[in-house]
Amino acid sequence: MRWLRYHGANGVRYGVLEGTSVAEIDTTPFADWKKTGNVVDLSAVKVLVPVVPPTFYAIGLNYALHASTYGSTTAIPARPQPGYRANSALIAHDETIVIPAASSGVQYEGELVVVIGKTGRYVSERDALSIVLGYSIGNDVSERTWQKADQGLWRAKNCDTFKPMGPWIETDARLEDMVTRVRLNGKQIIEFHTNEMVFGVVDFLVAMTQYITLYPGDVVWMGTEGECADMKHGDVCEVEITGIGTLSNPVVRATA
Amino acid sequence: MRWLRYHGANGVRYGVLEGTSVAEIDTTPFADWKKTGNVVDLSAVKVLVPVVPPTFYAIGLNYALHASTYGSTTAIPARPQPGYRANSALIAHDETIVIPAASSGVQYEGELVVVIGKTGRYVSERDALSIVLGYSIGNDVSERTWQKADQGLWRAKNCDTFKPMGPWIETDARLEDMVTRVRLNGKQIIEFHTNEMVFGVVDFLVAMTQYITLYPGDVVWMGTEGECADMKHGDVCEVEITGIGTLSNPVVRATA
Repeated sequence: MRWLRYHGANGVRYGVLEGTSVAEIDTTPFADWKKTGNVVDLSAVKVLVPVVPPTFYAIGLNYALHASTYGSTTAIPARPQPGYRANSALIAHDETIVIPAASSGVQYEGELVVVIGKTGRYVSERDALSIVLGYSIGNDVSERTWQKADQGLWRAKNCDTFKPMGPWIETDARLEDMVTRVRLNGKQIIEFHTNEMVFGVVDFLVAMTQYITLYPGDVVWMGTEGECADMKHGDVCEVEITGIGTLSNPVVRATA
Repeated sequence: MRWLRYHGANGVRYGVLEGTSVAEIDTTPFADWKKTGNVVDLSAVKVLVPVVPPTFYAIGLNYALHASTYGSTTAIPARPQPGYRANSALIAHDETIVIPAASSGVQYEGELVVVIGKTGRYVSERDALSIVLGYSIGNDVSERTWQKADQGLWRAKNCDTFKPMGPWIETDARLEDMVTRVRLNGKQIIEFHTNEMVFGVVDFLVAMTQYITLYPGDVVWMGTEGECADMKHGDVCEVEITGIGTLSNPVVRATA
Protein backbone atom coordinates (compact mmCIF):
# COMPACT_ATOMS: atom_id res chain seq x y z
CA MET A 1 0.00 0.00 0.00
CA ARG A 2 1.26 3.48 -0.88
CA TRP A 3 0.38 6.40 1.41
CA LEU A 4 0.40 9.77 -0.26
CA ARG A 5 0.21 13.06 1.63
CA TYR A 6 -1.06 15.83 -0.58
CA HIS A 7 -2.78 19.17 -0.87
CA GLY A 8 -6.02 18.92 -2.80
CA ALA A 9 -9.43 20.52 -2.90
CA ASN A 10 -10.06 19.53 0.73
CA GLY A 11 -6.74 20.87 2.01
CA VAL A 12 -3.94 18.68 3.36
CA ARG A 13 -4.96 15.03 3.28
CA TYR A 14 -3.62 11.49 3.26
CA GLY A 15 -4.76 9.05 0.64
CA VAL A 16 -4.05 5.59 -0.71
CA LEU A 17 -2.41 5.63 -4.12
CA GLU A 18 -4.32 3.31 -6.48
CA GLY A 19 -2.77 3.44 -9.95
CA THR A 20 -2.96 7.10 -10.91
CA SER A 21 -5.78 7.85 -8.46
CA VAL A 22 -5.67 8.78 -4.80
CA ALA A 23 -8.37 7.49 -2.44
CA GLU A 24 -8.71 10.03 0.37
CA ILE A 25 -8.86 8.86 4.01
CA ASP A 26 -10.40 10.69 6.97
CA THR A 27 -7.37 10.85 9.30
CA THR A 28 -3.78 9.70 8.82
CA PRO A 29 -2.02 6.34 8.39
CA PHE A 30 -0.85 6.76 12.02
CA ALA A 31 -4.38 6.60 13.44
CA ASP A 32 -7.56 4.62 12.88
CA TRP A 33 -8.65 5.62 9.40
CA LYS A 34 -11.27 4.91 6.79
CA LYS A 35 -11.66 5.95 3.17
CA THR A 36 -13.92 8.98 2.72
CA GLY A 37 -15.04 7.91 -0.75
CA ASN A 38 -13.38 10.93 -2.37
CA VAL A 39 -11.04 9.88 -5.15
CA VAL A 40 -8.83 12.36 -6.98
CA ASP A 41 -6.39 12.13 -9.82
CA LEU A 42 -2.73 12.07 -8.74
CA SER A 43 -2.05 14.69 -11.40
CA ALA A 44 -4.61 17.03 -9.80
CA VAL A 45 -2.98 17.27 -6.39
CA LYS A 46 0.19 18.81 -4.96
CA VAL A 47 2.35 16.03 -3.47
CA LEU A 48 3.65 16.95 0.01
CA VAL A 49 6.38 15.40 2.14
CA PRO A 50 4.83 12.09 3.27
CA VAL A 51 5.12 13.06 6.93
CA VAL A 52 6.43 15.96 9.01
CA PRO A 53 8.24 13.94 11.67
CA PRO A 54 7.97 14.67 15.39
CA THR A 55 11.68 13.76 15.48
CA PHE A 56 13.88 13.46 12.39
CA TYR A 57 16.68 10.90 12.82
CA ALA A 58 19.48 10.32 10.31
CA ILE A 59 22.37 7.89 10.29
CA GLY A 60 25.80 8.97 9.06
CA LEU A 61 28.57 6.71 7.71
CA ASN A 62 26.41 3.58 7.54
CA TYR A 63 27.85 2.05 4.36
CA ALA A 64 31.47 0.92 4.03
CA LEU A 65 32.60 2.80 0.91
CA HIS A 66 30.90 6.04 1.90
CA ALA A 67 32.41 5.90 5.39
CA SER A 68 35.91 5.44 3.99
CA THR A 69 35.36 8.34 1.55
CA TYR A 70 33.78 10.91 3.85
CA GLY A 71 34.86 9.83 7.33
CA SER A 72 38.26 9.56 8.95
CA THR A 73 40.34 6.37 8.57
CA THR A 74 38.50 4.90 11.54
CA ALA A 75 35.16 6.17 10.34
CA ILE A 76 33.03 3.04 10.45
CA PRO A 77 31.10 3.38 13.70
CA ALA A 78 31.54 0.65 16.30
CA ARG A 79 27.83 0.66 17.19
CA PRO A 80 24.55 2.21 16.04
CA GLN A 81 24.59 5.96 16.75
CA PRO A 82 21.82 8.07 15.21
CA GLY A 83 22.07 11.75 14.41
CA TYR A 84 19.39 14.31 13.61
CA ARG A 85 18.21 16.48 10.74
CA ALA A 86 15.89 19.51 10.70
CA ASN A 87 12.27 19.64 9.54
CA SER A 88 12.97 23.17 8.30
CA ALA A 89 14.96 21.66 5.41
CA LEU A 90 12.28 19.24 4.16
CA ILE A 91 10.89 19.55 0.64
CA ALA A 92 8.61 17.22 -1.31
CA HIS A 93 8.99 15.22 -4.50
CA ASP A 94 9.37 17.55 -7.51
CA GLU A 95 10.18 20.57 -5.34
CA THR A 96 13.41 22.46 -6.01
CA ILE A 97 16.75 21.98 -4.25
CA VAL A 98 18.34 25.44 -3.95
CA ILE A 99 22.15 25.65 -3.84
CA PRO A 100 22.96 28.68 -1.66
CA ALA A 101 24.80 31.47 -3.48
CA ALA A 102 27.68 31.18 -0.98
CA SER A 103 28.11 27.43 -1.55
CA SER A 104 31.06 25.94 -3.38
CA GLY A 105 29.03 22.84 -4.26
CA VAL A 106 26.41 20.45 -2.96
CA GLN A 107 26.08 16.69 -3.41
CA TYR A 108 23.16 14.26 -3.32
CA GLU A 109 22.96 11.29 -0.93
CA GLY A 110 20.26 8.75 -1.83
CA GLU A 111 18.84 7.17 1.31
CA LEU A 112 16.22 4.75 2.55
CA VAL A 113 13.75 6.40 4.93
CA VAL A 114 12.16 4.28 7.66
CA VAL A 115 8.78 5.67 8.75
CA ILE A 116 7.75 4.69 12.29
CA GLY A 117 4.09 3.70 12.64
CA LYS A 118 3.74 2.68 16.29
CA THR A 119 5.18 3.94 19.55
CA GLY A 120 8.18 1.81 20.51
CA ARG A 121 10.48 1.54 23.53
CA TYR A 122 12.79 -1.40 24.33
CA VAL A 123 11.84 -3.17 21.09
CA SER A 124 13.42 -6.58 20.53
CA GLU A 125 15.14 -7.74 17.35
CA ARG A 126 12.13 -9.89 16.60
CA ASP A 127 9.60 -7.09 17.09
CA ALA A 128 11.56 -4.14 15.69
CA LEU A 129 10.01 -4.10 12.21
CA SER A 130 6.52 -4.28 13.70
CA ILE A 131 6.76 -0.59 14.71
CA VAL A 132 7.59 0.40 11.11
CA LEU A 133 4.71 1.70 8.99
CA GLY A 134 6.70 1.62 5.77
CA TYR A 135 9.51 3.12 3.73
CA SER A 136 10.12 6.26 1.76
CA ILE A 137 13.11 7.86 0.01
CA GLY A 138 15.34 10.74 1.10
CA ASN A 139 18.04 12.83 -0.51
CA ASP A 140 20.44 13.96 2.24
CA VAL A 141 21.76 16.95 0.28
CA SER A 142 25.17 17.96 1.66
CA GLU A 143 27.52 20.92 1.29
CA ARG A 144 30.96 19.36 1.69
CA THR A 145 32.95 22.55 2.37
CA TRP A 146 30.71 23.46 5.28
CA GLN A 147 30.64 19.83 6.43
CA LYS A 148 34.43 20.03 6.88
CA ALA A 149 34.56 23.59 8.24
CA ASP A 150 31.76 23.53 10.83
CA GLN A 151 31.42 21.90 14.23
CA GLY A 152 28.02 20.49 13.33
CA LEU A 153 25.88 19.84 10.27
CA TRP A 154 23.58 22.84 10.46
CA ARG A 155 24.65 24.52 7.19
CA ALA A 156 26.17 21.42 5.63
CA LYS A 157 22.98 19.37 5.71
CA ASN A 158 20.11 21.54 6.95
CA CYS A 159 19.97 24.57 4.68
CA ASP A 160 16.48 25.29 3.39
CA THR A 161 15.51 22.69 0.71
CA PHE A 162 18.37 20.29 1.59
CA LYS A 163 16.10 17.42 2.67
CA PRO A 164 13.88 16.14 -0.17
CA MET A 165 11.68 13.25 1.03
CA GLY A 166 9.02 11.23 -0.78
CA PRO A 167 7.16 10.70 -2.95
CA TRP A 168 5.11 8.46 -0.66
CA ILE A 169 5.28 5.77 2.06
CA GLU A 170 5.31 2.18 0.74
CA THR A 171 4.16 -0.35 3.34
CA ASP A 172 4.92 -3.56 1.42
CA ALA A 173 8.53 -3.15 0.28
CA ARG A 174 11.06 -5.72 1.59
CA LEU A 175 14.47 -4.52 2.80
CA GLU A 176 16.31 -7.49 1.32
CA ASP A 177 14.96 -6.82 -2.18
CA MET A 178 15.81 -3.12 -2.35
CA VAL A 179 18.37 -1.59 -4.71
CA THR A 180 19.09 2.15 -4.54
CA ARG A 181 19.93 4.00 -7.76
CA VAL A 182 20.84 7.65 -8.08
CA ARG A 183 20.52 9.43 -11.43
CA LEU A 184 21.60 12.92 -12.44
CA ASN A 185 19.79 14.18 -15.56
CA GLY A 186 18.72 10.63 -16.34
CA LYS A 187 22.24 9.15 -16.16
CA GLN A 188 22.80 6.58 -13.43
CA ILE A 189 25.66 7.56 -11.10
CA ILE A 190 25.54 4.83 -8.50
CA GLU A 191 23.66 1.64 -7.63
CA PHE A 192 23.88 -0.28 -4.36
CA HIS A 193 22.02 -2.89 -2.35
CA THR A 194 20.03 -0.75 0.07
CA ASN A 195 20.17 -3.24 2.91
CA GLU A 196 23.97 -3.71 2.88
CA MET A 197 24.36 -1.28 5.75
CA VAL A 198 27.00 -1.33 8.48
CA PHE A 199 24.09 -1.47 10.96
CA GLY A 200 20.67 -2.34 9.61
CA VAL A 201 17.19 -1.03 10.34
CA VAL A 202 16.60 -3.59 13.09
CA ASP A 203 19.98 -2.84 14.73
CA PHE A 204 19.12 0.85 14.91
CA LEU A 205 15.57 0.44 16.19
CA VAL A 206 16.74 -1.90 18.93
CA ALA A 207 19.65 0.36 19.98
CA MET A 208 17.73 3.64 19.84
CA THR A 209 14.74 2.37 21.83
CA GLN A 210 17.01 1.38 24.71
CA TYR A 211 17.15 5.12 25.45
CA ILE A 212 14.50 6.82 23.37
CA THR A 213 10.82 6.33 22.64
CA LEU A 214 10.08 6.29 18.92
CA TYR A 215 6.73 7.81 17.97
CA PRO A 216 4.37 7.43 15.00
CA GLY A 217 5.62 9.67 12.19
CA ASP A 218 9.24 9.71 13.29
CA VAL A 219 11.59 9.04 10.39
CA VAL A 220 15.03 7.43 10.34
CA TRP A 221 17.19 8.12 7.29
CA MET A 222 19.56 5.18 6.92
CA GLY A 223 22.61 6.70 5.22
CA THR A 224 24.05 6.36 1.73
CA GLU A 225 26.77 4.41 -0.09
CA GLY A 226 29.70 5.42 -2.24
CA GLU A 227 31.27 8.64 -3.38
CA CYS A 228 28.77 11.33 -4.35
CA ALA A 229 28.90 13.86 -7.17
CA ASP A 230 28.20 17.59 -7.26
CA MET A 231 24.81 18.84 -8.42
CA LYS A 232 24.68 22.01 -10.47
CA HIS A 233 22.10 24.56 -11.60
CA GLY A 234 19.67 22.97 -14.03
CA ASP A 235 20.22 19.37 -12.91
CA VAL A 236 17.48 16.95 -11.99
CA CYS A 237 18.42 14.45 -9.27
CA GLU A 238 16.49 11.18 -8.95
CA VAL A 239 16.78 8.62 -6.17
CA GLU A 240 15.05 5.32 -6.94
CA ILE A 241 14.64 2.46 -4.49
CA THR A 242 13.26 -0.84 -5.74
CA GLY A 243 9.76 -1.46 -4.49
CA ILE A 244 9.26 2.08 -3.23
CA GLY A 245 9.50 4.45 -6.19
CA THR A 246 11.51 7.44 -7.37
CA LEU A 247 12.14 10.76 -5.62
CA SER A 248 12.92 13.44 -8.20
CA ASN A 249 14.01 17.03 -7.58
CA PRO A 250 15.26 19.80 -9.85
CA VAL A 251 18.27 21.85 -8.74
CA VAL A 252 18.85 25.58 -9.03
CA ARG A 253 21.58 27.84 -7.72
CA ALA A 254 20.46 30.92 -5.80
CA THR A 255 21.67 34.14 -7.34
CA ALA A 256 22.08 36.08 -4.08
CA MET B 1 2.47 38.52 28.99
CA ARG B 2 2.84 34.87 29.93
CA TRP B 3 1.65 32.17 27.52
CA LEU B 4 0.77 28.88 29.14
CA ARG B 5 0.10 25.68 27.20
CA TYR B 6 -1.96 23.26 29.23
CA HIS B 7 -4.36 20.35 29.28
CA GLY B 8 -7.67 21.30 30.84
CA ALA B 9 -11.33 20.44 30.55
CA ASN B 10 -11.33 21.51 26.87
CA GLY B 11 -8.24 19.48 25.96
CA VAL B 12 -4.90 21.03 24.96
CA ARG B 13 -5.15 24.82 24.97
CA TYR B 14 -3.11 27.99 25.18
CA GLY B 15 -3.99 30.67 27.68
CA VAL B 16 -2.73 33.91 29.15
CA LEU B 17 -1.52 33.58 32.72
CA GLU B 18 -3.16 36.26 34.88
CA GLY B 19 -2.07 35.86 38.47
CA THR B 20 -3.13 32.31 39.37
CA SER B 21 -5.74 32.14 36.62
CA VAL B 22 -5.43 31.17 32.97
CA ALA B 23 -7.52 32.97 30.35
CA GLU B 24 -8.05 30.52 27.49
CA ILE B 25 -7.57 31.66 23.87
CA ASP B 26 -9.11 30.16 20.74
CA THR B 27 -5.95 29.34 18.77
CA THR B 28 -2.26 29.73 19.65
CA PRO B 29 0.11 32.64 20.31
CA PHE B 30 1.56 31.95 16.85
CA ALA B 31 -1.69 32.83 15.05
CA ASP B 32 -4.42 35.44 15.27
CA TRP B 33 -6.09 34.74 18.60
CA LYS B 34 -8.76 36.02 20.91
CA LYS B 35 -9.77 35.11 24.43
CA THR B 36 -12.64 32.61 24.59
CA GLY B 37 -13.90 33.94 27.92
CA ASN B 38 -13.09 30.65 29.67
CA VAL B 39 -10.91 31.23 32.71
CA VAL B 40 -9.49 28.35 34.74
CA ASP B 41 -7.38 28.10 37.85
CA LEU B 42 -3.70 27.39 37.19
CA SER B 43 -3.88 24.70 39.88
CA ALA B 44 -6.68 22.93 37.98
CA VAL B 45 -4.76 22.31 34.76
CA LYS B 46 -1.84 20.15 33.68
CA VAL B 47 1.00 22.39 32.47
CA LEU B 48 2.46 21.18 29.16
CA VAL B 49 5.68 22.12 27.37
CA PRO B 50 4.99 25.64 26.11
CA VAL B 51 5.47 24.60 22.48
CA VAL B 52 6.38 21.47 20.53
CA PRO B 53 8.84 23.05 18.13
CA PRO B 54 8.84 22.34 14.38
CA THR B 55 12.65 22.46 14.72
CA PHE B 56 14.51 22.33 18.04
CA TYR B 57 17.81 24.24 17.97
CA ALA B 58 20.37 24.26 20.78
CA ILE B 59 23.69 26.03 21.15
CA GLY B 60 26.65 24.27 22.74
CA LEU B 61 29.66 25.93 24.41
CA ASN B 62 28.21 29.43 24.37
CA TYR B 63 29.57 30.67 27.71
CA ALA B 64 33.28 31.03 28.45
CA LEU B 65 33.64 28.99 31.66
CA HIS B 66 31.42 26.16 30.45
CA ALA B 67 33.30 25.94 27.16
CA SER B 68 36.64 25.66 28.94
CA THR B 69 35.24 22.98 31.27
CA TYR B 70 33.42 20.75 28.79
CA GLY B 71 35.07 21.56 25.45
CA SER B 72 38.58 21.07 24.18
CA THR B 73 41.25 23.73 24.79
CA THR B 74 40.08 25.53 21.66
CA ALA B 75 36.44 25.03 22.53
CA ILE B 76 35.08 28.55 22.22
CA PRO B 77 33.48 28.57 18.77
CA ALA B 78 34.77 31.12 16.28
CA ARG B 79 31.26 31.88 14.98
CA PRO B 80 27.63 31.06 15.73
CA GLN B 81 26.96 27.37 15.00
CA PRO B 82 23.65 25.92 16.18
CA GLY B 83 23.04 22.27 16.98
CA TYR B 84 19.81 20.34 17.43
CA ARG B 85 17.89 18.50 20.12
CA ALA B 86 15.00 16.02 19.87
CA ASN B 87 11.33 16.66 20.61
CA SER B 88 11.13 13.08 21.90
CA ALA B 89 13.06 14.16 25.00
CA LEU B 90 10.82 17.11 25.97
CA ILE B 91 9.02 17.13 29.30
CA ALA B 92 7.07 19.90 31.02
CA HIS B 93 7.50 21.83 34.25
CA ASP B 94 7.05 19.50 37.24
CA GLU B 95 7.45 16.35 35.15
CA THR B 96 10.11 13.85 36.16
CA ILE B 97 13.66 13.59 34.80
CA VAL B 98 14.51 9.88 34.63
CA ILE B 99 18.18 8.88 34.94
CA PRO B 100 18.59 5.71 32.84
CA ALA B 101 19.59 2.63 34.82
CA ALA B 102 22.73 2.28 32.66
CA SER B 103 23.85 5.86 33.32
CA SER B 104 26.82 6.73 35.48
CA GLY B 105 25.41 10.19 36.16
CA VAL B 106 23.51 13.05 34.61
CA GLN B 107 23.92 16.79 35.05
CA TYR B 108 21.60 19.80 34.67
CA GLU B 109 22.30 22.70 32.33
CA GLY B 110 20.11 25.77 32.95
CA GLU B 111 19.41 27.58 29.68
CA LEU B 112 17.50 30.48 28.20
CA VAL B 113 15.03 29.35 25.52
CA VAL B 114 14.21 31.72 22.65
CA VAL B 115 10.76 31.05 21.18
CA ILE B 116 10.37 32.19 17.56
CA GLY B 117 7.06 33.92 16.82
CA LYS B 118 7.34 34.94 13.17
CA THR B 119 8.83 33.38 10.06
CA GLY B 120 12.30 34.81 9.48
CA ARG B 121 14.93 34.56 6.74
CA TYR B 122 17.88 36.94 6.25
CA VAL B 123 16.95 38.91 9.36
CA SER B 124 19.14 41.92 10.13
CA GLU B 125 20.70 42.74 13.50
CA ARG B 126 18.15 45.48 13.93
CA ASP B 127 15.16 43.26 13.12
CA ALA B 128 16.29 39.98 14.71
CA LEU B 129 14.39 40.29 17.99
CA SER B 130 11.20 41.20 16.12
CA ILE B 131 10.77 37.53 15.11
CA VAL B 132 10.97 36.42 18.77
CA LEU B 133 7.65 35.78 20.55
CA GLY B 134 9.26 35.49 23.97
CA TYR B 135 11.45 33.46 26.28
CA SER B 136 11.18 30.26 28.26
CA ILE B 137 13.55 28.12 30.33
CA GLY B 138 15.23 24.83 29.46
CA ASN B 139 17.24 22.23 31.34
CA ASP B 140 19.65 20.59 28.86
CA VAL B 141 20.10 17.41 30.92
CA SER B 142 23.35 15.70 29.92
CA GLU B 143 24.96 12.31 30.52
CA ARG B 144 28.68 13.12 30.51
CA THR B 145 30.04 9.59 30.02
CA TRP B 146 27.98 9.13 26.87
CA GLN B 147 28.80 12.68 25.76
CA LYS B 148 32.50 11.69 25.72
CA ALA B 149 32.02 8.16 24.36
CA ASP B 150 29.60 8.75 21.48
CA GLN B 151 29.99 10.39 18.07
CA GLY B 152 26.87 12.49 18.60
CA LEU B 153 24.61 13.62 21.41
CA TRP B 154 21.74 11.15 20.94
CA ARG B 155 22.08 9.33 24.29
CA ALA B 156 24.03 12.07 26.05
CA LYS B 157 21.38 14.74 25.62
CA ASN B 158 18.27 13.19 24.05
CA CYS B 159 17.24 10.27 26.25
CA ASP B 160 13.55 10.31 27.15
CA THR B 161 12.85 13.09 29.74
CA PHE B 162 16.23 14.84 29.20
CA LYS B 163 14.75 18.11 27.90
CA PRO B 164 12.55 19.85 30.49
CA MET B 165 11.16 23.13 29.09
CA GLY B 166 8.80 25.68 30.60
CA PRO B 167 6.85 26.59 32.56
CA TRP B 168 5.57 29.20 30.06
CA ILE B 169 6.60 31.75 27.44
CA GLU B 170 7.23 35.26 28.79
CA THR B 171 6.93 37.94 26.11
CA ASP B 172 8.12 40.95 28.15
CA ALA B 173 11.43 39.83 29.68
CA ARG B 174 14.55 41.79 28.70
CA LEU B 175 17.75 39.90 27.85
CA GLU B 176 20.01 42.44 29.57
CA ASP B 177 18.16 42.11 32.88
CA MET B 178 18.20 38.31 33.11
CA VAL B 179 20.10 36.31 35.72
CA THR B 180 20.04 32.50 35.57
CA ARG B 181 20.12 30.56 38.85
CA VAL B 182 20.20 26.78 39.23
CA ARG B 183 19.15 25.16 42.51
CA LEU B 184 19.34 21.53 43.59
CA ASN B 185 16.97 20.72 46.46
CA GLY B 186 16.58 24.43 47.14
CA LYS B 187 20.31 25.14 47.38
CA GLN B 188 21.71 27.50 44.76
CA ILE B 189 24.55 25.92 42.77
CA ILE B 190 25.31 28.58 40.21
CA GLU B 191 24.24 32.07 39.17
CA PHE B 192 25.23 33.87 35.98
CA HIS B 193 24.17 36.78 33.80
CA THR B 194 22.07 35.08 31.16
CA ASN B 195 23.03 37.45 28.36
CA GLU B 196 26.82 37.12 28.82
CA MET B 197 27.03 34.63 25.99
CA VAL B 198 29.89 34.10 23.55
CA PHE B 199 27.38 34.81 20.78
CA GLY B 200 24.10 36.39 21.74
CA VAL B 201 20.54 35.82 20.61
CA VAL B 202 20.79 38.42 17.84
CA ASP B 203 24.10 36.96 16.59
CA PHE B 204 22.52 33.53 16.26
CA LEU B 205 19.29 34.65 14.61
CA VAL B 206 21.23 36.68 12.04
CA ALA B 207 23.68 33.84 11.30
CA MET B 208 21.12 31.04 11.18
CA THR B 209 18.72 32.87 8.89
CA GLN B 210 21.45 33.33 6.29
CA TYR B 211 20.88 29.64 5.52
CA ILE B 212 17.71 28.55 7.27
CA THR B 213 14.15 29.83 7.60
CA LEU B 214 13.04 30.06 11.21
CA TYR B 215 9.35 29.28 11.76
CA PRO B 216 6.80 30.17 14.46
CA GLY B 217 7.24 27.77 17.36
CA ASP B 218 10.89 26.96 16.67
CA VAL B 219 12.98 27.16 19.83
CA VAL B 220 16.66 28.01 20.27
CA TRP B 221 18.27 26.92 23.55
CA MET B 222 21.14 29.31 24.21
CA GLY B 223 23.59 27.20 26.23
CA THR B 224 24.68 27.27 29.87
CA GLU B 225 27.52 28.64 31.98
CA GLY B 226 29.91 27.07 34.44
CA GLU B 227 30.64 23.61 35.70
CA CYS B 228 27.55 21.51 36.36
CA ALA B 229 26.82 19.02 39.14
CA ASP B 230 25.36 15.54 39.11
CA MET B 231 21.69 15.03 39.88
CA LYS B 232 20.65 11.98 41.87
CA HIS B 233 17.50 10.04 42.66
CA GLY B 234 15.18 12.13 44.82
CA ASP B 235 16.61 15.52 43.83
CA VAL B 236 14.55 18.46 42.62
CA CYS B 237 16.29 20.67 40.06
CA GLU B 238 15.14 24.25 39.56
CA VAL B 239 16.26 26.68 36.87
CA GLU B 240 15.19 30.27 37.48
CA ILE B 241 15.65 33.12 35.03
CA THR B 242 14.86 36.66 36.16
CA GLY B 243 11.73 37.98 34.52
CA ILE B 244 10.65 34.60 33.17
CA GLY B 245 10.07 32.27 36.13
CA THR B 246 11.27 28.94 37.48
CA LEU B 247 11.38 25.56 35.78
CA SER B 248 11.28 22.79 38.38
CA ASN B 249 11.65 19.04 37.86
CA PRO B 250 12.05 16.11 40.22
CA VAL B 251 14.66 13.46 39.42
CA VAL B 252 14.41 9.68 39.73
CA ARG B 253 16.75 6.90 38.71
CA ALA B 254 15.23 4.08 36.64
CA THR B 255 15.57 0.69 38.27
CA ALA B 256 15.92 -1.34 35.06
